[in-house]
Amino acid sequence: MRYAYLGPEATFTEAALLTYLDAKGLREQATIQPMRGAASALDSVLEGESTAAIVPIENSVEGGVPATIDALTEHGDLQIIAEVVVPVRFVLAVRPGTDAITSFGSHPHGEAQVRAYMAEHYPDAVYIPTSSTAAAARDLAGNASDHVAAVCPALAAERYGLEIVAEDIGDRQDAVTRFVVVALPGQIPEPTGADKTTLVAALRSDRPGALLELLEQFSTRGITMSRIESRPTGDRLGLYQFSIDLLGHIREARVADALLGVHRVAMSVKFLGSYPSADATRPIIDPTTTDSSFAEASAWLTGVLDRD
Amino acid sequence: MRYAYLGPEATFTEAALLTYLDAKGLREQATIQPMRGAASALDSVLEGESTAAIVPIENSVEGGVPATIDALTEHGDLQIIAEVVVPVRFVLAVRPGTDAITSFGSHPHGEAQVRAYMAEHYPDAVYIPTSSTAAAARDLAGNASDHVAAVCPALAAERYGLEIVAEDIGDRQDAVTRFVVVALPGQIPEPTGADKTTLVAALRSDRPGALLELLEQFSTRGITMSRIESRPTGDRLGLYQFSIDLLGHIREARVADALLGVHRVAMSVKFLGSYPSADATRPIIDPTTTDSSFAEASAWLTGVLDRD
Amino acid sequence: MRYAYLGPEATFTEAALLTYLDAKGLREQATIQPMRGAASALDSVLEGESTAAIVPIENSVEGGVPATIDALTEHGDLQIIAEVVVPVRFVLAVRPGTDAITSFGSHPHGEAQVRAYMAEHYPDAVYIPTSSTAAAARDLAGNASDHVAAVCPALAAERYGLEIVAEDIGDRQDAVTRFVVVALPGQIPEPTGADKTTLVAALRSDRPGALLELLEQFSTRGITMSRIESRPTGDRLGLYQFSIDLLGHIREARVADALLGVHRVAMSVKFLGSYPSADATRPIIDPTTTDSSFAEASAWLTGVLDRD
Amino acid sequence: MRYAYLGPEATFTEAALLTYLDAKGLREQATIQPMRGAASALDSVLEGESTAAIVPIENSVEGGVPATIDALTEHGDLQIIAEVVVPVRFVLAVRPGTDAITSFGSHPHGEAQVRAYMAEHYPDAVYIPTSSTAAAARDLAGNASDHVAAVCPALAAERYGLEIVAEDIGDRQDAVTRFVVVALPGQIPEPTGADKTTLVAALRSDRPGALLELLEQFSTRGITMSRIESRPTGDRLGLYQFSIDLLGHIREARVADALLGVHRVAMSVKFLGSYPSADATRPIIDPTTTDSSFAEASAWLTGVLDRD
Repeated sequence: MRYAYLGPEATFTEAALLTYLDAKGLREQATIQPMRGAASALDSVLEGESTAAIVPIENSVEGGVPATIDALTEHGDLQIIAEVVVPVRFVLAVRPGTDAITSFGSHPHGEAQVRAYMAEHYPDAVYIPTSSTAAAARDLAGNASDHVAAVCPALAAERYGLEIVAEDIGDRQDAVTRFVVVALPGQIPEPTGADKTTLVAALRSDRPGALLELLEQFSTRGITMSRIESRPTGDRLGLYQFSIDLLGHIREARVADALLGVHRVAMSVKFLGSYPSADATRPIIDPTTTDSSFAEASAWLTGVLDRD
Repeated sequence: MRYAYLGPEATFTEAALLTYLDAKGLREQATIQPMRGAASALDSVLEGESTAAIVPIENSVEGGVPATIDALTEHGDLQIIAEVVVPVRFVLAVRPGTDAITSFGSHPHGEAQVRAYMAEHYPDAVYIPTSSTAAAARDLAGNASDHVAAVCPALAAERYGLEIVAEDIGDRQDAVTRFVVVALPGQIPEPTGADKTTLVAALRSDRPGALLELLEQFSTRGITMSRIESRPTGDRLGLYQFSIDLLGHIREARVADALLGVHRVAMSVKFLGSYPSADATRPIIDPTTTDSSFAEASAWLTGVLDRD
Repeated sequence: MRYAYLGPEATFTEAALLTYLDAKGLREQATIQPMRGAASALDSVLEGESTAAIVPIENSVEGGVPATIDALTEHGDLQIIAEVVVPVRFVLAVRPGTDAITSFGSHPHGEAQVRAYMAEHYPDAVYIPTSSTAAAARDLAGNASDHVAAVCPALAAERYGLEIVAEDIGDRQDAVTRFVVVALPGQIPEPTGADKTTLVAALRSDRPGALLELLEQFSTRGITMSRIESRPTGDRLGLYQFSIDLLGHIREARVADALLGVHRVAMSVKFLGSYPSADATRPIIDPTTTDSSFAEASAWLTGVLDRD
Repeated sequence: MRYAYLGPEATFTEAALLTYLDAKGLREQATIQPMRGAASALDSVLEGESTAAIVPIENSVEGGVPATIDALTEHGDLQIIAEVVVPVRFVLAVRPGTDAITSFGSHPHGEAQVRAYMAEHYPDAVYIPTSSTAAAARDLAGNASDHVAAVCPALAAERYGLEIVAEDIGDRQDAVTRFVVVALPGQIPEPTGADKTTLVAALRSDRPGALLELLEQFSTRGITMSRIESRPTGDRLGLYQFSIDLLGHIREARVADALLGVHRVAMSVKFLGSYPSADATRPIIDPTTTDSSFAEASAWLTGVLDRD
């Protein structure tokens, strides 16, 4: 049982992985491994070196995480088997003995979330981007940084022996990040009634209204989207693919039927998994789109054709 | 080979039946039988007394023929196997020797189609409704009428020995009536690529926008409607069923898929047949709704689920 | 104060007119006049001979009344100012002393509504079509008929001195007919909050999906249709106009905006009136389509353009 | 004439600004000023220090530029007056005399676009993120970097005296970045027939299908979207605002009418400008959504209401 995660150590991603392993009762037997990027973490699964990988996909303040979304799209043969949502709480930390905070390091996503706090309390502090929030702490602790303070998770401050100057300094104290656990295909979790399905669909470039046509596949089957992110296909301005989370499971008829519709109208579609919703909320299903409504329609049509 | 038709004799319906039998090369071996109403003609098929029945369903001037549409809906176990479109040309006919046309008989549908002509040429002639256009001729010939002229098909004037005063007196000279040939289930004609499918769907009364939802089943599959008639369900003002003709055949995937959708969203649906279009025009099929597009989507979904 | 109505005397239409006049407190001062057809009734308004005309537009069993719908469409300069809904109850009546009911007369609409009753009680009685239900009574009373019984309103049986054999013989005892009161333009009744708007729109023949596009004008503004009737334009099979009732008043912004949309997408549109709903039910208005929502949007746009 | 741009110097943004000034014939008289971020560049316009600012909004490979989109949304009182599209071509540059490329610096967007090239030619080179592609060159030239090579625009290599090792190393040689020129309100450029309109709309959280409803405002008026970017509102996972470019000008009736619709259905909407399309392509306008179609509808409605 080996789990890869988007490193470095001591980030919110490690915290999310530990949460997941605890929930599954796997913490004792699992080994965990930080990886340099979302793509590397996913590669280690593809290559059989890891059982699964955990990567951030969406943040309530910053939005989708393009690197993850793109890596999942490009590694089309992986599947999301779980999601984990964790609160995002930043601390401001320094090396013991620091007296003036003239600069601070953090990942741009971290910086964005403490901008108001830092502007108010340290208006003159220069922001130095780092490759992760934990790296800001690690480099500061190792005297390998241009910054004299770090905006990072409490876990990172603790692990690297920094002194916490202020806690919970995020501009939005209810910020959360959503992570997904990704494995090789072959293990679609059973439907629980409160599930999500993730897919990526690229629009046909020659169809005005292609996005509307895509969304109608969901609306006409009474399916709610909980996330939609536009991503360029990379081919040209104005060509998009959409990374979408639906409420429902591919083994529910309305979702399967919508996926058939998406396959027809989209230039391409990738199924990235059906898995339990972290919040366990069951969607309200319209009477016209229940499994039994689909089954009855199918039985009726068979009957009509069998008369033949 | 016995064919029932909406009588009486010598109407456009008999003309349509003869056209159909000629086209099929069946005229020699078939016997034909006029019936008192559309319902009786259909009953004779249901009871095994007739091979098929022919009834008018739609007129380019007067619109749908409610009696036929309602009879087809109520006799849900019949199927349309062919359509025949015939031009509607009326004559004004009298008993030989008549000098003043002070009144004329015709079926209300006939009267409606010559209203401008009669108002111009015989402004004072009183209109007497008859149960059919041919009955106007027959009763006149038999001295059994209150009218002194008949507005009827040429066939009726000839058969009953009347004198034709004026020909082709319809206000719209391109008027046509469309007839359908109805048989017991069990003989869906093969798809020709230029077919129609007829169905009746009753809307759910508790869904505002139910008609839009119904039509979306066709529009999202690129299916064109060639006829739509509203009919009351009879239960309450504002409750409708719709009699609809689609371009396409139930054995084409986009039509079958739309019918599944209609079954789900409608309160009830009746399939009334797939049969060759009289005008042999093939609809343009969008690339996203071809049979192969549906087959590829289905194969893809099976592949995704089989990984499991 | 002269009111025309679709005659003859003693039909449900006269009953509806009396109901209307009573409700308005006009019965004393009004004179009423039966007319030969819906078109004649409307003509008398157009020509200034009548203050208003009342004509049947819709029956809960038989559906729309094509003659009225077509006459309203063709007389495009008239306006509906009120609606009246009356229960439809038929009696079976004979001349005093009649012993066997071997035939019965009625208008085809009347016959359709008592078909089950007559088939059960008088399976051998021959149906004779008459030009109205009241005419069946009048002609019977005047010995001017081929039928020995009449299916007619109680009012007609009484007025012509017939004997009522059976009451309330309609197959659906909750059947109602809806009538409209039609006047010259220039008097749109004030909005009451529970109003209807009637219009006729002809679809563009060159736009597949034209009906859907028409209905979207209402659905995207949260407007409910309470009636929709297809009528042929008369030009060709498959060309339609739709006679539609909406819940709402032209002086409500969502209705006015929808009418603008209909004008753009339809080949032609006729506004036939906004008037109080007979049932006084107020539609639920979505927060995005209230008058204030429209006013705020308009003020915002003006502000944006005024910056210029 | 002072123009702010997203700095530092020598980036593609400076190149875009120079292109814009050349096209307008303003290069001689304009002074240009690099700013630390998109927000600062926009602030300098708001505060009257700059005539206009130029910022990147979209890249054909990396997608939308969240910092710009968010800054434009938050600075709601600014307006886009022009767009500039420039090709993105990277060089690999070193200090003269460098023999081994063991590391390279670039902005993450730059690194993403040369990933395949670097992996193939320098598989062991470590990537060091920098705050801009030009900063990678500047810091390298100034001996202030951990990296020994820079992936940057040719302009930056030249300006800082670096040696170009390889040119045009982007994985997609047709990559482009789109920039917008932003000014104070009060100067909506005249319609040219080939224009874009930019807006940001936040969805109502309580309406499932809110995105579909938003897009229908455009589709029902025949308006094409050329860009749509989802951005979180920051309030909660699943709450979005959408940054959208439309083909059309606010002074065209179909666009103005769609904006009214968006104002009604969205929680909030910001108009960010109408300006000439860089590619000068005129959209095809459906006959039902031309300015004259809107004007005729409006005249008709006025006529109907004036009868009153």
